[in-house]
Amino acid sequence: MPSGATLLLVLDLVGTFAFALNGALTALRAARLDIVGVVTLGMITAVGGGTIRDVLLDSLPPATFADWRYYAVAAAGGLIAFFLGRRLDRLNTPITVLDAVGLALFAVTGATKAIGLGFGPEQAVIVGTITAVGGGTIRDVLVRQIPSVLSSGFYAIPALIGATAAVVASLLGAGGTLATVGAAVLCFVIRMVGVRYDLNAPYPLAPPEPARDDDE
Amino acid sequence: MPSGATLLLVLDLVGTFAFALNGALTALRAARLDIVGVVTLGMITAVGGGTIRDVLLDSLPPATFADWRYYAVAAAGGLIAFFLGRRLDRLNTPITVLDAVGLALFAVTGATKAIGLGFGPEQAVIVGTITAVGGGTIRDVLVRQIPSVLSSGFYAIPALIGATAAVVASLLGAGGTLATVGAAVLCFVIRMVGVRYDLNAPYPLAPPEPARDDDE
Amino acid sequence: MPSGATLLLVLDLVGTFAFALNGALTALRAARLDIVGVVTLGMITAVGGGTIRDVLLDSLPPATFADWRYYAVAAAGGLIAFFLGRRLDRLNTPITVLDAVGLALFAVTGATKAIGLGFGPEQAVIVGTITAVGGGTIRDVLVRQIPSVLSSGFYAIPALIGATAAVVASLLGAGGTLATVGAAVLCFVIRMVGVRYDLNAPYPLAPPEPARDDDE
Repeated sequence: MPSGATLLLVLDLVGTFAFALNGALTALRAARLDIVGVVTLGMITAVGGGTIRDVLLDSLPPATFADWRYYAVAAAGGLIAFFLGRRLDRLNTPITVLDAVGLALFAVTGATKAIGLGFGPEQAVIVGTITAVGGGTIRDVLVRQIPSVLSSGFYAIPALIGATAAVVASLLGAGGTLATVGAAVLCFVIRMVGVRYDLNAPYPLAPPEPARDDDE
Repeated sequence: MPSGATLLLVLDLVGTFAFALNGALTALRAARLDIVGVVTLGMITAVGGGTIRDVLLDSLPPATFADWRYYAVAAAGGLIAFFLGRRLDRLNTPITVLDAVGLALFAVTGATKAIGLGFGPEQAVIVGTITAVGGGTIRDVLVRQIPSVLSSGFYAIPALIGATAAVVASLLGAGGTLATVGAAVLCFVIRMVGVRYDLNAPYPLAPPEPARDDDE
Repeated sequence: MPSGATLLLVLDLVGTFAFALNGALTALRAARLDIVGVVTLGMITAVGGGTIRDVLLDSLPPATFADWRYYAVAAAGGLIAFFLGRRLDRLNTPITVLDAVGLALFAVTGATKAIGLGFGPEQAVIVGTITAVGGGTIRDVLVRQIPSVLSSGFYAIPALIGATAAVVASLLGAGGTLATVGAAVLCFVIRMVGVRYDLNAPYPLAPPEPARDDDE
């Protein structure tokens, strides 16, 4: 049976692969990119959140950089997306599922790492959420999309809930393997329910007219 | 009477609130965002500059992350903007004033922090300016605007002057409460004069034609 | 004869100047910017890659920030571009050459710094490449271009090869001045051959239709 640290590493690598595949496919659709661009964007989606996490937690050099397994797994995901892009593109459901897996795993492992380094619960929740959504945000900025986490769907909130669940379990002394997996499953289920029923976070009731596009 | 450290903290928190409110309102106008997006952009505007500052000063984890008061204040600013967005939008003058307050406070506290950590005057001026304009720059990138600090108005220059004044005062042995406030007031006044008289930093005399927008 | 450290510093400063000049000129063409914007973008292009490098290598504060010579040289490059912008714009060949010089020098000095700090060869190759392409990527994001490294030409690959050559030489015990310069020349030549013969990294064979531009 794996120890806690091994479990965290395995979950983190699975999340990394899921995000690399998803990130590269999103990039393929958003812009005309060459193989360098597709693989790079897959890797950035996969390791971006963890890099921000480790800067905030003062845990440099970032685990995603110091441990070659992260970028081997991330590069593999990006290359698969590049070579199978068109076929994978029809597999919208598996891709959404993979992305939700990555979201759930990164939210929970990010929060758990913060607790393990002695940070408070607020920091752990915030850093878990940032770990989960950070890579995709950098990807969207690079291909000139407004980051989807800011504008659509139900994406940051499941991450916030998953990170909170992991932190609460840890504070209650139940921060073991089961609680970690449970919090990730909770995040995953909420995310998939949001996708299924097309949930959205509330929009402003009376938004000012978005008139600032004059410089486009 | 507050000590220097307390004063810096209070000024920093006031600047954080001003930037969160302003950043969330700017985001509301620039793109269609949900509550997560508006509050996130307010928080990023508020804590982004300080985060870059602390990376450059090797003062990790960032104060804006390690101290929950920063993101409590930032989240409050973002939520107020979300719920009162339309009404606040008519209050253009107070918003511009608040932003100038944040600019002035961050330029001065950023520079003062660098001096306190033993950095040289050039570093202190640069880091003060980056603290002041960094959060707004990240916000603009996320909502796909060319950062206003790069293209319009008189924004970075007041910050540069305020940071320089704080550094000079400190080098002259006058780095106390009064000098800190004085440098911030100087930056604030220059910024507001720039707004009032529509000052701009110089443009290139003969710019090459901006022909690269073909991919828009 | 310069020691290894002095050589690295000199090469790094030459690369910084080349990138500042090139970055400011690219910025001038991409958007309407004032003097603050042009100089800032020149400086960001010049020191951005090195800043990311030093975050990843846990070598904070970044050398580009702690050592005033970096931003003095970078600011000089930005100011020259601002004042001579139009005339320099006709000098497309020298600008491309300067950029290739910066690319080559940063790839090699970044990789060499990583090896010197005890990182493994994979980390050194990755960080050398990121040092070389990082500044230009931030610049492109700020002026709302899709980073050219992701979408066109033969840019990241020469950097990758140059960094790899520097690392291999170092592993073979030949990490001296000659090997450093040789690896930089190799990167430079490959980049210039790519420019001359209009080489591109492979594109996806059957890309999915880029249908996500609806929000443009």
